[in-house]
Amino acid sequence: MTDRQHAVDSAVASTADDIAEMRTRGAATIADAAAGALATQAKRSEATTEAAFRTELRAAAKTLYETRPTAVSLPNALRYVLRGMEGATVAELRASTIDQAEAFQRELAQAQSKLGTVGSNRLRDGDVVMTHCHSTDALSCVEAALEDGKEIEAIVKETRPRKQGHITARQLREWGVPVTLVVDNAARRYLDRADHVLVGADSIAADGSVINKIGTSGLAVNARERGVPVMVAAQTIKLHPDTMTGHTVEIEMRAESEIVSDDERADIDDEYADDDLVVENPAFDVTPPRYVDAIVTERGQYPPESIVTLMRELFGETTSEPWEP
Amino acid sequence: MTDRQHAVDSAVASTADDIAEMRTRGAATIADAAAGALATQAKRSEATTEAAFRTELRAAAKTLYETRPTAVSLPNALRYVLRGMEGATVAELRASTIDQAEAFQRELAQAQSKLGTVGSNRLRDGDVVMTHCHSTDALSCVEAALEDGKEIEAIVKETRPRKQGHITARQLREWGVPVTLVVDNAARRYLDRADHVLVGADSIAADGSVINKIGTSGLAVNARERGVPVMVAAQTIKLHPDTMTGHTVEIEMRAESEIVSDDERADIDDEYADDDLVVENPAFDVTPPRYVDAIVTERGQYPPESIVTLMRELFGETTSEPWEP
Amino acid sequence: MTDRQHAVDSAVASTADDIAEMRTRGAATIADAAAGALATQAKRSEATTEAAFRTELRAAAKTLYETRPTAVSLPNALRYVLRGMEGATVAELRASTIDQAEAFQRELAQAQSKLGTVGSNRLRDGDVVMTHCHSTDALSCVEAALEDGKEIEAIVKETRPRKQGHITARQLREWGVPVTLVVDNAARRYLDRADHVLVGADSIAADGSVINKIGTSGLAVNARERGVPVMVAAQTIKLHPDTMTGHTVEIEMRAESEIVSDDERADIDDEYADDDLVVENPAFDVTPPRYVDAIVTERGQYPPESIVTLMRELFGETTSEPWEP
Amino acid sequence: MTDRQHAVDSAVASTADDIAEMRTRGAATIADAAAGALATQAKRSEATTEAAFRTELRAAAKTLYETRPTAVSLPNALRYVLRGMEGATVAELRASTIDQAEAFQRELAQAQSKLGTVGSNRLRDGDVVMTHCHSTDALSCVEAALEDGKEIEAIVKETRPRKQGHITARQLREWGVPVTLVVDNAARRYLDRADHVLVGADSIAADGSVINKIGTSGLAVNARERGVPVMVAAQTIKLHPDTMTGHTVEIEMRAESEIVSDDERADIDDEYADDDLVVENPAFDVTPPRYVDAIVTERGQYPPESIVTLMRELFGETTSEPWEP
Amino acid sequence: MTDRQHAVDSAVASTADDIAEMRTRGAATIADAAAGALATQAKRSEATTEAAFRTELRAAAKTLYETRPTAVSLPNALRYVLRGMEGATVAELRASTIDQAEAFQRELAQAQSKLGTVGSNRLRDGDVVMTHCHSTDALSCVEAALEDGKEIEAIVKETRPRKQGHITARQLREWGVPVTLVVDNAARRYLDRADHVLVGADSIAADGSVINKIGTSGLAVNARERGVPVMVAAQTIKLHPDTMTGHTVEIEMRAESEIVSDDERADIDDEYADDDLVVENPAFDVTPPRYVDAIVTERGQYPPESIVTLMRELFGETTSEPWEP
Amino acid sequence: MTDRQHAVDSAVASTADDIAEMRTRGAATIADAAAGALATQAKRSEATTEAAFRTELRAAAKTLYETRPTAVSLPNALRYVLRGMEGATVAELRASTIDQAEAFQRELAQAQSKLGTVGSNRLRDGDVVMTHCHSTDALSCVEAALEDGKEIEAIVKETRPRKQGHITARQLREWGVPVTLVVDNAARRYLDRADHVLVGADSIAADGSVINKIGTSGLAVNARERGVPVMVAAQTIKLHPDTMTGHTVEIEMRAESEIVSDDERADIDDEYADDDLVVENPAFDVTPPRYVDAIVTERGQYPPESIVTLMRELFGETTSEPWEP
Repeated sequence: MTDRQHAVDSAVASTADDIAEMRTRGAATIADAAAGALATQAKRSEATTEAAFRTELRAAAKTLYETRPTAVSLPNALRYVLRGMEGATVAELRASTIDQAEAFQRELAQAQSKLGTVGSNRLRDGDVVMTHCHSTDALSCVEAALEDGKEIEAIVKETRPRKQGHITARQLREWGVPVTLVVDNAARRYLDRADHVLVGADSIAADGSVINKIGTSGLAVNARERGVPVMVAAQTIKLHPDTMTGHTVEIEMRAESEIVSDDERADIDDEYADDDLVVENPAFDVTPPRYVDAIVTERGQYPPESIVTLMRELFGETTSEPWEP
Repeated sequence: MTDRQHAVDSAVASTADDIAEMRTRGAATIADAAAGALATQAKRSEATTEAAFRTELRAAAKTLYETRPTAVSLPNALRYVLRGMEGATVAELRASTIDQAEAFQRELAQAQSKLGTVGSNRLRDGDVVMTHCHSTDALSCVEAALEDGKEIEAIVKETRPRKQGHITARQLREWGVPVTLVVDNAARRYLDRADHVLVGADSIAADGSVINKIGTSGLAVNARERGVPVMVAAQTIKLHPDTMTGHTVEIEMRAESEIVSDDERADIDDEYADDDLVVENPAFDVTPPRYVDAIVTERGQYPPESIVTLMRELFGETTSEPWEP
Repeated sequence: MTDRQHAVDSAVASTADDIAEMRTRGAATIADAAAGALATQAKRSEATTEAAFRTELRAAAKTLYETRPTAVSLPNALRYVLRGMEGATVAELRASTIDQAEAFQRELAQAQSKLGTVGSNRLRDGDVVMTHCHSTDALSCVEAALEDGKEIEAIVKETRPRKQGHITARQLREWGVPVTLVVDNAARRYLDRADHVLVGADSIAADGSVINKIGTSGLAVNARERGVPVMVAAQTIKLHPDTMTGHTVEIEMRAESEIVSDDERADIDDEYADDDLVVENPAFDVTPPRYVDAIVTERGQYPPESIVTLMRELFGETTSEPWEP
Repeated sequence: MTDRQHAVDSAVASTADDIAEMRTRGAATIADAAAGALATQAKRSEATTEAAFRTELRAAAKTLYETRPTAVSLPNALRYVLRGMEGATVAELRASTIDQAEAFQRELAQAQSKLGTVGSNRLRDGDVVMTHCHSTDALSCVEAALEDGKEIEAIVKETRPRKQGHITARQLREWGVPVTLVVDNAARRYLDRADHVLVGADSIAADGSVINKIGTSGLAVNARERGVPVMVAAQTIKLHPDTMTGHTVEIEMRAESEIVSDDERADIDDEYADDDLVVENPAFDVTPPRYVDAIVTERGQYPPESIVTLMRELFGETTSEPWEP
Repeated sequence: MTDRQHAVDSAVASTADDIAEMRTRGAATIADAAAGALATQAKRSEATTEAAFRTELRAAAKTLYETRPTAVSLPNALRYVLRGMEGATVAELRASTIDQAEAFQRELAQAQSKLGTVGSNRLRDGDVVMTHCHSTDALSCVEAALEDGKEIEAIVKETRPRKQGHITARQLREWGVPVTLVVDNAARRYLDRADHVLVGADSIAADGSVINKIGTSGLAVNARERGVPVMVAAQTIKLHPDTMTGHTVEIEMRAESEIVSDDERADIDDEYADDDLVVENPAFDVTPPRYVDAIVTERGQYPPESIVTLMRELFGETTSEPWEP
Repeated sequence: MTDRQHAVDSAVASTADDIAEMRTRGAATIADAAAGALATQAKRSEATTEAAFRTELRAAAKTLYETRPTAVSLPNALRYVLRGMEGATVAELRASTIDQAEAFQRELAQAQSKLGTVGSNRLRDGDVVMTHCHSTDALSCVEAALEDGKEIEAIVKETRPRKQGHITARQLREWGVPVTLVVDNAARRYLDRADHVLVGADSIAADGSVINKIGTSGLAVNARERGVPVMVAAQTIKLHPDTMTGHTVEIEMRAESEIVSDDERADIDDEYADDDLVVENPAFDVTPPRYVDAIVTERGQYPPESIVTLMRELFGETTSEPWEP
């Protein structure tokens, strides 16, 4: 193995840098950039043997992957593109890789709109949806329903600590949707008025669990108890391939300051140093599949227990790292 | 019937006024004042016939009751005192009424402490309690457990919109209890660490439902799903006698400003006038008895399904208004 | 013991006869007649000793009881009256027995109306109730709500095999209540529109089980699954005292002809004699207490798990037969 | 594009007509006719280019589809056949299309029998099945079990409003199966005697929901509560491809006269015109997958949550209309 | 206060000794002895003032109580007797106390037989009961059913670690009851054949929880899941009065040797000393009331949620120790 | 067809013999031997036509299959190998069959280790697992977690009747895992301390049911009730292909002597001959998929409802016997 064989193109390096430094962010944007970087690597590769080409591409994938191993869409993009790298000659490998990368980008560009159509088909004229947090995937379902001429109303949970419910409410009001804004504590009471709970996902695991904004699982449990179906809107880039091999998704703990100001903290306990007042702020929680009625993707809807088969279709059996053969 | 017979003492009128104007507030304070006013009425009554005395006392009760018909402890105090008004002469009636009023006040003064002992008996050394809102009845259980030498930890939900969880956290920290403060959305995630959910009650209905701070019912449903028992701490003045005859408890809707500031509202929808952005802020919700494991009172603990028998013991069969024979 | 002591008045015999021959029928009518017969026995008794009087009254009770041992209201009336037979002389015994019988009759006459008020308090303006079979107790709740100015709508299950839902629908229409009539199979679908399931009871057991028209239990299970509360309207004469000692309620099997006509039967299997086509037609089924939210009686509402304490209040500890000391 | 390219053969037109006019009816019959019509179109096509051939076939499919868009087996047949249309020349396209159509018809002819074998394997000697409505798919499971020498008994729900239970009972009696016929209201009581609930399906959705005769969902909820497994027998032509993209299945509302006769209606409310007596008669309801234990098809058994993967195998990803490329 | 006033009779001391030394054991035997000792104390008392008499009796109760504070029937007997100590003179106090003690003993002697009758009324001819551990209260229900001419079969769980199921099986076989003996692990599989789960109780708490032989709660959860009702047979001396004030019942940990022999232990880990192999052997577990259908006592049957009202009837409000006024 | 065509190699015969006589036992060992025998048959075949070769191989498969039709891994191995038998010439058929057999054996050799990695990924540092019976697949998950540096503790159920829990405990102790050994009856009590239930499987059915050591299903029901996830570790050779066509898995009934010794039996009922004391000892029970959170295999983790799709991938649609075309 020579340096030459591992040559990662500067475009890849620059993309990797942008992802690592959070200049490129957002699940879809990262995925698009990573696929594009692999295509560039394929185009510019000077490899002269099939093996060398493959090694180069895998090295590029590894470089990209290691920038943010917890960004679920990143390994998805890499796996998807590398799975399409086929051929007996360097030319064929190059062409197939580029094709696959472009196919991925094309599909990605349409994914949210397609997903919205699928989700909107589950909504009927006059339905009331209860939302949690802010998700453009979830909102695309409402948007498609409105475009389809359906009247939709929304009950919007404010979603402490960061109150992303306000962003959701604003978007819905721009579309003319009647909105009732409530605190998260009021969810069970208002479920009696709701026809659907509609949320997005941070990522989705092979066992059908939905990782989403803290509060989702408690809402889903109450929705089941009240007889209200729960719909999760998530593009397939949210399917977490590592979970196919049993990995659990690490839950980010966010800053305490999102929950209490310094003044509030001092007011509760001004001798805080003793570790006996802890403010914990997990960003997400895990909703078991038995509380979710459907996961809506750009490739159709699935019961959560079947999402693993879609993951296998898209990413193969992922017992190796994304960049491994 | 003459005016004389209905003479309501000025002390009663003044107490009634204080209650109506919210100068006298808090379930226990109101109950104490109302019982005291009836005792004063009994002491000062100039009635010369048994019938006249009874009529006077009932009129006093009616005057007091009508100041705040939704204050659950008020009819309780009135019913309890009037049930003790017994005797064949005015002197006997007077004495029995005063005795009963004083007994009520005496028990009331000890109720929270007794309740705390009962509740603390359910807690074991090392237990973790999850709290919702702020309830001195609930906290008295923790206090008694600490006095009993048990180590208790607490997970405190902040309890939007008014964040009474901060008051709870401060009190617990003063007692040296280790506190983990979380947003309401995090409740299900932290239930795995909790041995008990411990809440107070605004009032309790004859069908075993617990009316308490908004969010209680959603928490209770999740606690059952996670296998964590739910304890409600409530003095018997919280038992709502009207519910024995099927009445439901009116849920107060509070100001929108507790949920969104004017700026936030404008940010969501600055053409708010069209009624299509509504902010709803119910103060309480209703937890069905099947999600509550025990109601802890100063008279012992009860499954919620049995609380109606305690209500009957204390208030009799309440098919009439509190001031009616 | 002489014949004299056991002399059962002819009025008792005649009442017993009317009950046995079904000339006197209906839970309330039977109970009223039985109490009246005991009063008459007490009035006309020629007993000269306290013991003889008691023996006579018990013999009368036994005579009445044995006419229809399965009529739940009959032992209730007898137990209630005999529990009030107190005094040291025949005159006192006579007076107390007559008083108790009249009190029973008086309360019975008002029971349905009082029950209706209690039940209507659980209904809110605009509520939709789903009914099963036909029950005047259940309908009295709707009537009281209407009189109270509330708007109520109804979803009426037809209630095969005898379609008593039609009677319910007709009564509701007479009161101007909007009615949606559906087949029993459609219940789950329409529960989404219902705020309450409202049914009567054939009898209620000490373990909180509700015996009512076949189909009630299946409806209650679905109501719980859909989050709709179930209200059972039943006067206290429906509380089955034998069940306090563990007795189960015998379920009547009714005629096959209520289900299939001769023609239909022949069409299914014209060689019916071989016992391999059986048509079974149980009149009632048993709903466990965990699927019932409240039992509404003239003495207030109760969780089903507490009804045994009301039974003990009314009938005492019934380890003996109704006519035994 | 010329008229020629779109030429739909008269055989197709005639088949379409028969379907539209309901001369061809029944899920399997329609599917068979549609596949046959496409084969005929392929045989008779005069197209000279591959593109023209494809266009013709798609036009034929569209013509057929539009006759009864709600007949679930129709798009299934069309999708299945068109998916097999492969080749580089008109001759190849023709041959492959005809092959695929014939394969579809061949499999269809054997499907019920194969399904019956699969379903019967779930039944053990001596088992009691409870049936709802009449389904030849469901009955084929019993038939295969009988042929296998197993003794099977049946509890047959009459299935109001149309009492198709009588047809089921008659068929079972012809096979010598002991039958207990009960009204739908008696289902929960008789579930204690049943080892299986066995029903057919009108259609099955991608989220695992089973659309079947009204009453199925209420039965399934009770079966789960009683611990009785629910088996749904449905050929794969019942899998509803539109639901893969989130579409819900429209529930047909049938004539009021199936529920009440004119006389009965007049008896309930003879001033019916005021819209306040409504008789609603939905033909089907929706059973969520969590209440179904297995869906039995000619291709084996599936948990309802996995049926979407079978749909994808058979019909591909159906984000386009059946006749679209 | 003089020594004289506290004189505890030698009979009391001797009874206390017998209880402490386990010569007197078994819930009923202990209760009988304790009541008898109080009667003896009352008979032999030389107290000359009412106060002295009361003090003496309370001292006796305290002496008895402290021998085995965890024996639930002991405080029950003491409370019951002391509640009957009434009168204005020593003679009256003496007489009432003796009467009450004798009444308690009389009822105790009949309690199991009465309980058996109540329990047997819940069993129908042909029923199959599943038993756990060995309980004479539970068996008395079967015995009464057999005497009543009913055929009963039993599925007997062996009940590790001590296999008391063998004792149950032997008793049932002596009565001619067909017995199927299974290991505890087989319970869920055999619940399909059972009509009842029938167990005794070590004690019953005011919140309706049943403390019984380890394994009861797991069985009850499975019985509910399989739709089999759970009956607990327990004389009222098993009602634990301390639990009315929230006390939890201490669960005894028994010897490891009941689970593993020394050889087995050595075989698992012969370096046992490192504390990393622990064998735990709790004698009892706690079944929540929601998994119990009825508690059968000599005073009738009760839903577990109502047992607190029976406790209040029998023992009063127990906020003080048994021997306190 | 001549004898020659069906010639089963002596190596096959010998392997078949070893399996039949239980000299070759254990799911993996059997599967490995069967695949090896088919490879040998392929190597040594003297068939000169493709058809003859195929017939020979199928005959060999049939011979092997019939030795122990209930050994789930046997048909799996056969199906897997025969599915790979492809080619147009005998040489190609031979090569592909041998390749497929070797691939199967290779994967089998690594399966448990791969599975262990997948399962260990679900475990977090500090987790407590509760085990039932002894399963090397389940233990491999713990082993991998330990190798990964995680601290794991175990609660080990002894698993009557054969106490395989002791074997599990010994293995875990050898690895230094802290173990708490309890009787099966104590499971629910100790679930409060467990983070996972971890079990193996005897076989897994297409409807997602898990067939495993008796007691698994009761444990799983309690685990769900306590909120503890259930993980089943099972190599894909445990997936039961017959169940794809609805077949249920026969449950072996084992010897009574595992439960009671002769002495114990005589002690219970020494007139045992009358058939009224039966000791039943089923080896396995069936856990419905709704109580299992994940099935962990060497090909990743799956919700039980999706395992059928993995079965189809591995074995095809198994409507024919393993040896049929």
